[in-house]
Amino acid sequence: MAIAITLLVLDLKVPDAVQVPDGDLLGALAARWPSYLAYLAAFLTIGIIWLNHRAFVDRIRRFDGPLHWFNLLLLLGVATLPFPTSLLAAYLADGGPAASTAAVIYGLLSVATALPWLLMWRHLVRHPELLEPPLDISYARRELRRASIGPAVYAFAVPVAFVAPFVGLIFYIAIAVLYAVTNQGSVADPIAPAASTNVG
Amino acid sequence: MAIAITLLVLDLKVPDAVQVPDGDLLGALAARWPSYLAYLAAFLTIGIIWLNHRAFVDRIRRFDGPLHWFNLLLLLGVATLPFPTSLLAAYLADGGPAASTAAVIYGLLSVATALPWLLMWRHLVRHPELLEPPLDISYARRELRRASIGPAVYAFAVPVAFVAPFVGLIFYIAIAVLYAVTNQGSVADPIAPAASTNVG
Amino acid sequence: MAIAITLLVLDLKVPDAVQVPDGDLLGALAARWPSYLAYLAAFLTIGIIWLNHRAFVDRIRRFDGPLHWFNLLLLLGVATLPFPTSLLAAYLADGGPAASTAAVIYGLLSVATALPWLLMWRHLVRHPELLEPPLDISYARRELRRASIGPAVYAFAVPVAFVAPFVGLIFYIAIAVLYAVTNQGSVADPIAPAASTNVG
Amino acid sequence: MAIAITLLVLDLKVPDAVQVPDGDLLGALAARWPSYLAYLAAFLTIGIIWLNHRAFVDRIRRFDGPLHWFNLLLLLGVATLPFPTSLLAAYLADGGPAASTAAVIYGLLSVATALPWLLMWRHLVRHPELLEPPLDISYARRELRRASIGPAVYAFAVPVAFVAPFVGLIFYIAIAVLYAVTNQGSVADPIAPAASTNVG
Repeated sequence: MAIAITLLVLDLKVPDAVQVPDGDLLGALAARWPSYLAYLAAFLTIGIIWLNHRAFVDRIRRFDGPLHWFNLLLLLGVATLPFPTSLLAAYLADGGPAASTAAVIYGLLSVATALPWLLMWRHLVRHPELLEPPLDISYARRELRRASIGPAVYAFAVPVAFVAPFVGLIFYIAIAVLYAVTNQGSVADPIAPAASTNVG
Repeated sequence: MAIAITLLVLDLKVPDAVQVPDGDLLGALAARWPSYLAYLAAFLTIGIIWLNHRAFVDRIRRFDGPLHWFNLLLLLGVATLPFPTSLLAAYLADGGPAASTAAVIYGLLSVATALPWLLMWRHLVRHPELLEPPLDISYARRELRRASIGPAVYAFAVPVAFVAPFVGLIFYIAIAVLYAVTNQGSVADPIAPAASTNVG
Repeated sequence: MAIAITLLVLDLKVPDAVQVPDGDLLGALAARWPSYLAYLAAFLTIGIIWLNHRAFVDRIRRFDGPLHWFNLLLLLGVATLPFPTSLLAAYLADGGPAASTAAVIYGLLSVATALPWLLMWRHLVRHPELLEPPLDISYARRELRRASIGPAVYAFAVPVAFVAPFVGLIFYIAIAVLYAVTNQGSVADPIAPAASTNVG
Repeated sequence: MAIAITLLVLDLKVPDAVQVPDGDLLGALAARWPSYLAYLAAFLTIGIIWLNHRAFVDRIRRFDGPLHWFNLLLLLGVATLPFPTSLLAAYLADGGPAASTAAVIYGLLSVATALPWLLMWRHLVRHPELLEPPLDISYARRELRRASIGPAVYAFAVPVAFVAPFVGLIFYIAIAVLYAVTNQGSVADPIAPAASTNVG
């Protein structure tokens, strides 16, 4: 995930010297605002998945086959995210149907990134013995409910992105931030000391 | 391996605005289906090698010189895979001899990626003291047999890819999935608890 | 950070064969000196943040929510740095207003990279229980003061970069080196043994 | 280093469809043989530095300030290596002065990558207390001598590369392989068990 997040910067393209009239680099850069917005959205999305994933790993006593697979599926989503981010960066300013397409594809991939969480927690509800004690089945059930919120919210945000791509992108950023705030709440629960690892 | 897998996304190119008539971004993207198929095949292949490699590392008590070298050879194969993946993405839709060439090169590199496993397990059959107890020489022999299946199956799939590149690619994906399912079986054996590490 | 630092090399472009008259590759490379200077500045900046970050992580007993967030903010700054580095590489030789713009943007992002340190140490002054004993609040206060120097020095360097982009870049490199030397001093303090980890 | 090694694959470019006459993809790929040779040389060089570095880290009890800095210098060399590799890939087939320039630059950077080892072992000769017991000053002296061989051999290989770039490249590969074989010898010495970590 650290890699996917740092690869995003490759989407921020340096304007070609020949396209910058009279040395107005600032104007040329400002005209690329959708790149920066898409970059920020993708960085936040991957960053929050990363923090969630670390907290998740700390709560698992043992990874079995299915968990490894759902993990790989999550990585597939995260690793692919730089692609729709590039699409958004290239077509958001356009504002026409291409911008809608890009915003919807970005949203659909974000949903796809939320699904592995559902699968993981459903698996843990059935196999609570994989959880780090004292976590138990009731904890897994609570997290499964929380993991269901993501896809539900996106089901609302994607049609918005279709009609108004820019509003949709703002929505995506808002979802990421909201999800993060909720998660911080859960980090403050009794098992938080177990989550004391370092991001880096 | 995490890096090779995330670099694959760089092969998913954003269509040039000038090549997208009437804002039909969806059509322009759909025309690039071979990119997505090649991306998925490469992601699965590297992902499964990754899971296998992690399970492998858990079974080794000590890495000696030759094991380090076979490891580096495996990494050479994995790190190079994005290149034939790009070839496939660029030439599969073409369908002519170039598609055959790309599919065969992809297959040959996959075989090359399967060979280090053979070398590693043959080395471990000779030096079972490098295995994590209670694993012994009979375990190494069993794994050596299992590692021999890969190259054998590819010996069949590569000629198929030469005649029918698209069918060959489907074959490669199938091999990856089948290999993965077999491996999950072996993860369920008595030493599985030792394999309880986290991917991420 | 290891990733951001190695991605920088992608900015060192190979001159196009058609633009190299009479095989004078050395001349063509020499003409790109701003690329190398910008590369060195960005490598040093990220490298020093990296060493600082590792020393920092060794001094923290537990990462809570806010620390994770400031960490992510720091990563956002570091991961974005290759972009203004590319800008500098492309426009520094130009010398006109575009060079000023590039040098100022590089400086502003460097300030943004210094800010999370301020936030982290301010948080640790309020929650000294997160520090690895025997570190205490007086240590956090000392580090907070040291972290305040960075933004202050940049507040002076950025206007310089606006007037004379090249001098500004030299300044940025000097700040990085000076910061590093200061830090080495602090590594030599009583808790240094705790910082004995390996970079790699 | 894992990142630098996987970034190398980005230098293997897919031939443009318009430049491939009559679907002769194999011919178009074969014409790019210098890319593959340069890729292999760089992969081997970084791979061997990587193995050496891991063995090195296992022999150090504690990293002090200077060691961290020499480490960063080594990383600077390794992270920059993909650039002269690209140069070689682009200009080796040309055979004229540009090929000489590319081969010499590659060689000079390889020397620069060998220098931090000299600095590190000289530092350890002065501070043998940083070594993992039972290693002592006599061990550090032996390694310092071994580290001196690299630059000496390159001092011979670089002029060769200037006169005959292709022969020079073969030389570079030979140095890497020879160095690796020597190193395997030293891995077999009494402290080898301490080096039993996994590459991955």
